[in-house]
Amino acid sequence: MPSIKIQKSTMKDQVYEIIKEMILNQTYQLGEKINIDTLATELNVSNSPIREALTMLEKQGLVEYVPNVGSRIISFSPTAFREICFSLFTVVYGAYELCLSQNKIDIAIEKMRQLLQAQKDIDDHSDMQTSIKYALAFDKSIVYATQNTYLLSIYEQMEDIFFLMALHINQRNEEEHQRNIFEHSMILESIEKNDIAAAKHWFFIHYDKHV
Amino acid sequence: MPSIKIQKSTMKDQVYEIIKEMILNQTYQLGEKINIDTLATELNVSNSPIREALTMLEKQGLVEYVPNVGSRIISFSPTAFREICFSLFTVVYGAYELCLSQNKIDIAIEKMRQLLQAQKDIDDHSDMQTSIKYALAFDKSIVYATQNTYLLSIYEQMEDIFFLMALHINQRNEEEHQRNIFEHSMILESIEKNDIAAAKHWFFIHYDKHV
Repeated sequence: MPSIKIQKSTMKDQVYEIIKEMILNQTYQLGEKINIDTLATELNVSNSPIREALTMLEKQGLVEYVPNVGSRIISFSPTAFREICFSLFTVVYGAYELCLSQNKIDIAIEKMRQLLQAQKDIDDHSDMQTSIKYALAFDKSIVYATQNTYLLSIYEQMEDIFFLMALHINQRNEEEHQRNIFEHSMILESIEKNDIAAAKHWFFIHYDKHV
Repeated sequence: MPSIKIQKSTMKDQVYEIIKEMILNQTYQLGEKINIDTLATELNVSNSPIREALTMLEKQGLVEYVPNVGSRIISFSPTAFREICFSLFTVVYGAYELCLSQNKIDIAIEKMRQLLQAQKDIDDHSDMQTSIKYALAFDKSIVYATQNTYLLSIYEQMEDIFFLMALHINQRNEEEHQRNIFEHSMILESIEKNDIAAAKHWFFIHYDKHV
């Protein structure tokens, strides 16, 4: 058999993945305009799959279309920022309560311990991307522990925007990595003690960020 | 100017809307296989936009792809059913708590009163589709009252599957419409009294359905 790699994804999907990666690795800055012609030349494709990919990114909230301006990376207005934080709170805290009511909290605790340790063990704190991936993995592990496919899919649909938001928070503050570890420790400790009120308090603090 | 209707949506999007409508109005039954060739002939399109539309419906959870069988409408296994109910609980109860913490509960209460009344006023109880639209509007109004775009978008992404689930519940039980009104009344009453524990209790009962 000839060794042909089967390319299953469509042009649009590939362009979508490339632009998304450029947003998440900060090739594009927040609020930066996306020049479709430039991108078409760089990627050697027509404008059409780029427009389609941008529509997908708009639906996901990573890109916003501004009349007379065009498409640009979201810039997290204070309102949008708070809204995203509270959505994350709703999903993650809700997942915690779901774990409690369905006796799945031990699965969550074990995974949270591992991920908190991994987060503490990160050697290179200047590698913001990796730091944030570990930080978000801690929060996600609570949703994961519910073993609820639909809730997990809700979380995963928002995951990229959470990543971008976390990147945005961390760049404002060098101490954010340590604060994040502290808040995660307090959340885990409260959950281990089965102190629901304290857990709620720390979840709330953890997600009550401002720009 | 000539009166040409601008057709902005792509073929795939139009086919998606048609199939979705056929699922929601029960032209297709739960678990029924979708014959792509038949559908292509009926809609006078090629198989390709149908396959693309089915992929979108799979992502949304309305359709499932089964190897060696093909695409079929979801059939709500007991596990899937419980998972969807608990996801709905997480989002709606979370929205209620968000309203409380952000002093938006009065907006929610006013809208819930209107929608409960509308639900009681339905003349033709045999029109299941309309009954369920009103019933779901009550739940959605709580999410809407948060004024949180992201949380609302989470809800809206799941809306069709909630509709299909509600249709499924109601077909098992003629009394479900009255029970739904009763549960909504209890939720509203608890919220009006600011009895958070009672509200949580009734939200939980409301979403703790079984197949």
